[in-house]
Amino acid sequence: MLHKFDSNSEAVFNKVSQRQDSTFKLLYFPIHGVAYASRLILATTGAKFESASPTNWVEQKATTPFGVLPVLYETVTTKEGDSEVQEVFEIPESEAIERYLARKFQLLGQTPWEEMKINAFVSSTKSLTFLAFSRIPTVKDTVQKQEMVQDMVNKSVPAWVQSHERYLVANGTNGHYIGDKLTLADIRALIVIELVLALTEDRVISQEKTPAIWKLWEGVRAIPSFVAWRNTDSYKQFDAGYQTFVKGLLPLKEQ
Amino acid sequence: MLHKFDSNSEAVFNKVSQRQDSTFKLLYFPIHGVAYASRLILATTGAKFESASPTNWVEQKATTPFGVLPVLYETVTTKEGDSEVQEVFEIPESEAIERYLARKFQLLGQTPWEEMKINAFVSSTKSLTFLAFSRIPTVKDTVQKQEMVQDMVNKSVPAWVQSHERYLVANGTNGHYIGDKLTLADIRALIVIELVLALTEDRVISQEKTPAIWKLWEGVRAIPSFVAWRNTDSYKQFDAGYQTFVKGLLPLKEQ
Repeated sequence: MLHKFDSNSEAVFNKVSQRQDSTFKLLYFPIHGVAYASRLILATTGAKFESASPTNWVEQKATTPFGVLPVLYETVTTKEGDSEVQEVFEIPESEAIERYLARKFQLLGQTPWEEMKINAFVSSTKSLTFLAFSRIPTVKDTVQKQEMVQDMVNKSVPAWVQSHERYLVANGTNGHYIGDKLTLADIRALIVIELVLALTEDRVISQEKTPAIWKLWEGVRAIPSFVAWRNTDSYKQFDAGYQTFVKGLLPLKEQ
Repeated sequence: MLHKFDSNSEAVFNKVSQRQDSTFKLLYFPIHGVAYASRLILATTGAKFESASPTNWVEQKATTPFGVLPVLYETVTTKEGDSEVQEVFEIPESEAIERYLARKFQLLGQTPWEEMKINAFVSSTKSLTFLAFSRIPTVKDTVQKQEMVQDMVNKSVPAWVQSHERYLVANGTNGHYIGDKLTLADIRALIVIELVLALTEDRVISQEKTPAIWKLWEGVRAIPSFVAWRNTDSYKQFDAGYQTFVKGLLPLKEQ
């Protein structure tokens, strides 16, 4: 049974939201885009998931809860007497999907303090992500765009690296922001670290220059289910688009 | 005692985070900006708060947890034996502040279902807010900028209005997204409704055209503590800047 976003499925949803054995389908365009963090959660936690793309977006658009993607479909199997029933839940909106998955997989901390800290690291990281993947690409004028890229690389990136390295060192350079646990802060940081490495190679982030950020990067990247995801055709397609996007930011390279 | 963001204050923070009698100081520039949602939470819930601005930002910048504003300072009074102790907590980053306050004041729902729905409405609303207050203002080229404003008014705004009116009607046109409770979804919607009214007067949102959105707007605006905040000098200063910003989007008016 499909429980649409606007259905009255609260009781069953509240029960199912705790389940750890769901399978997921994330419907989105074949790019990282605003689904990247959610896919990273699914990949790093070892969840069973597939990335699907709309076959006819113009028609499908009106059937989604807000006329936008991503939409997450979570499937769980429940028992009714002797028979098994499939319950499918529709969860729209990138930020809602990310928070729902992060909560489900215990990536938002276990105390108010941890949650506040995770949210602060995430918010700081998202500002830089948003600059790179939304504000800068919005600008068509090539002169302004290039100025913004330079400004990002010369100011926003070093500011992020400096403060986040400091907090990661303070936590023991163990590859995490909070204790020894994987959290949404680590996962969100991956997106920025990948971007910085693509834009500046080893000039800003490296094992020598930023050992704590580097430890996070290597640690999360080594999670077997994440390694496995990077070997899928879906990931390779998203990554090819990503590399093209980054090259578009990069007359930089000739500096 | 001031508990900085990087202090080891978890135990006392976890206790204090539940307190409903704190006083707050929100340090930010004298504009609505990315502090608007947090100030709206404080104003609509009747919290005791003041808006403060940096006196010398160039010097103060380095003393903040991430070199950016807003930063929230929460003060609670605790008893130690016969004497009272003031505990002050520093909470950085707009999104972390907003989530922390929303959690404290029960604006994120009481079940996983409510939280997922609130997050979805908030995420949808933030996309439009981000377009208007961040992506469009980023663009310097006046032709592109005006095209984006037109596109927002002709496409993004009607899409938001249509889907959100539908969900608010489905909840009974009672001025709320979830039950009969004020939530972060309502508060975030205010920001978009105010913008749409400023840009399009009664052409898109009105009591006749969108009764459910209108009910939310009037209902939240009538909360006495929010009315009181709109009469403060701080609010009036922020609002003056806001009106100037909106006018900058508005050759539209001549349509």
